[in-house]
Amino acid sequence: MLSGPTSTSDLKTRTRADYNFFVSYRTRWSDNDQYSHINNAVYYHLFDSIINAYLIAHCDLSPQASDAIGLVVSSYCQFFSPLSFPDVLDLGLRVNHVGKSSVTYEVGVFCEGNTEPAAVGGYTHVFVDAVSRKTSQMRDRTKEGLQRLFVGPSCSKPESKL
Amino acid sequence: MLSGPTSTSDLKTRTRADYNFFVSYRTRWSDNDQYSHINNAVYYHLFDSIINAYLIAHCDLSPQASDAIGLVVSSYCQFFSPLSFPDVLDLGLRVNHVGKSSVTYEVGVFCEGNTEPAAVGGYTHVFVDAVSRKTSQMRDRTKEGLQRLFVGPSCSKPESKL
Amino acid sequence: MLSGPTSTSDLKTRTRADYNFFVSYRTRWSDNDQYSHINNAVYYHLFDSIINAYLIAHCDLSPQASDAIGLVVSSYCQFFSPLSFPDVLDLGLRVNHVGKSSVTYEVGVFCEGNTEPAAVGGYTHVFVDAVSRKTSQMRDRTKEGLQRLFVGPSCSKPESKL
Amino acid sequence: MLSGPTSTSDLKTRTRADYNFFVSYRTRWSDNDQYSHINNAVYYHLFDSIINAYLIAHCDLSPQASDAIGLVVSSYCQFFSPLSFPDVLDLGLRVNHVGKSSVTYEVGVFCEGNTEPAAVGGYTHVFVDAVSRKTSQMRDRTKEGLQRLFVGPSCSKPESKL
Repeated sequence: MLSGPTSTSDLKTRTRADYNFFVSYRTRWSDNDQYSHINNAVYYHLFDSIINAYLIAHCDLSPQASDAIGLVVSSYCQFFSPLSFPDVLDLGLRVNHVGKSSVTYEVGVFCEGNTEPAAVGGYTHVFVDAVSRKTSQMRDRTKEGLQRLFVGPSCSKPESKL
Repeated sequence: MLSGPTSTSDLKTRTRADYNFFVSYRTRWSDNDQYSHINNAVYYHLFDSIINAYLIAHCDLSPQASDAIGLVVSSYCQFFSPLSFPDVLDLGLRVNHVGKSSVTYEVGVFCEGNTEPAAVGGYTHVFVDAVSRKTSQMRDRTKEGLQRLFVGPSCSKPESKL
Repeated sequence: MLSGPTSTSDLKTRTRADYNFFVSYRTRWSDNDQYSHINNAVYYHLFDSIINAYLIAHCDLSPQASDAIGLVVSSYCQFFSPLSFPDVLDLGLRVNHVGKSSVTYEVGVFCEGNTEPAAVGGYTHVFVDAVSRKTSQMRDRTKEGLQRLFVGPSCSKPESKL
Repeated sequence: MLSGPTSTSDLKTRTRADYNFFVSYRTRWSDNDQYSHINNAVYYHLFDSIINAYLIAHCDLSPQASDAIGLVVSSYCQFFSPLSFPDVLDLGLRVNHVGKSSVTYEVGVFCEGNTEPAAVGGYTHVFVDAVSRKTSQMRDRTKEGLQRLFVGPSCSKPESKL
């Protein structure tokens, strides 16, 4: 039910062209762990940042005022090459699945200037009522915004993007 | 190649008995995001903590002095019920696969006193030379320590734990 | 107006006896920065944790439901000796000043088993209306809870604790 | 001995003109705590980021290779108005004191487009030998880089900046 990546090789061949919304994030000193590279958990903080930035800017989400909010039910990430402070990262966002109450995002993490992703991952949001926290349908405006980033789960058929 | 969970339902039925090394972590104020529950990325920080604590205590790892260190190549998590500061969390660790140079861990996150996991996830470490960062074989002591936590990828056959 | 420490030497001589509420926190892998010690900003996350844990347990604070919440207006920390994952830390809390709408906390950070603090710091909370965010008086129950930790700004006169 | 701010009012009147090196940081989802504003400890993570970015770019610091590294011995911050994800923050850096082995930085945090700081704080670095962690003299190149940001502890006398 929860759509995820089909295989590692699919994700490693992602390019910037596979994503349709970009935001750049400056890394921070504390993103590096004692192995002097960006810690694996930090990528998920960045996923949260670009996804919620998109939801706020283009899907009518107001984290404190909306009736429906998105909660993460499943997440994953694959790491291909290390990054390190003070790298600047270009994050690309796409949507692989939109349902009645859930959406599956994928994020490509590119070091500034690179065409190959350093990491690719994502998560599935289920929209719930902000108070009861029970599953609710997505609002139309949210769905419209998310569908604009819809590409489908696979990049192997470029015609699916037409 | 990278062994992960086979399905959501497998993981949701995990119990404390499926894990053989436990550490309790107190949640922190900043673990809660603006939806007033522990943020999804924080679980990965906790995975890192119990895994590296085990490696240091039982697998002869010294993060600053060891020739070989473990780098994360793939991670995932499934979230079943919310947690919130100031909850105390019991983390259980198991090993689902040990190879020549890689190991796949699984972590169950239990709210203190609960028998059902609030979340289950994990990651795969590849051991690399600390300086060159090229894949290296695991040291014997590391492998022995990890094998003591080996259960196998599935809980569906309880006889595999005998 | 904002009461802070008077000098470095005052704080370095703090002992466990100077604090009257203790909570132990396990450090996490990501607390260590690339210099392999607990990063300076992490201490403030720990201050937040013990202070809000006390407010919730003993001062009737419910972060999501209370009319009045405490916002930080000023903070500081002095660092005397390094700490490192996987150290367990004993945090001690005291209150140096209680006003009509503000309170100044001090936290001593002790490595498990040590009598001398590794760091001492704290902050001042101003209580505000949860919605308007305008300064409000502290509720009686909050004040009573905080006054139980009141020691005064200086440890140099032990008689002030009688 | 450790030079810090003399009073709250000094810092609140800081403007962008009081700083001579700027970097912009995008806030992240997890910077907001459950009160829906940037958590107080996050400001210290940002201080670390701009200060180390400057040391790497202009003071010849290589965190993994330098003989001498800067460790924080004292830090503080004053908070004047709230910030919230997804705000973009302009951080301004200045140096208030340069000694033989220590330097005191001050950072002004401005919301993009604002002339008044949302927060002002900073910290003192003592340079130590990377291995022994004993106090060492600053290298000439480090000192030269830091002196280019030297303004002095007070902004109230604009002539001191000449």
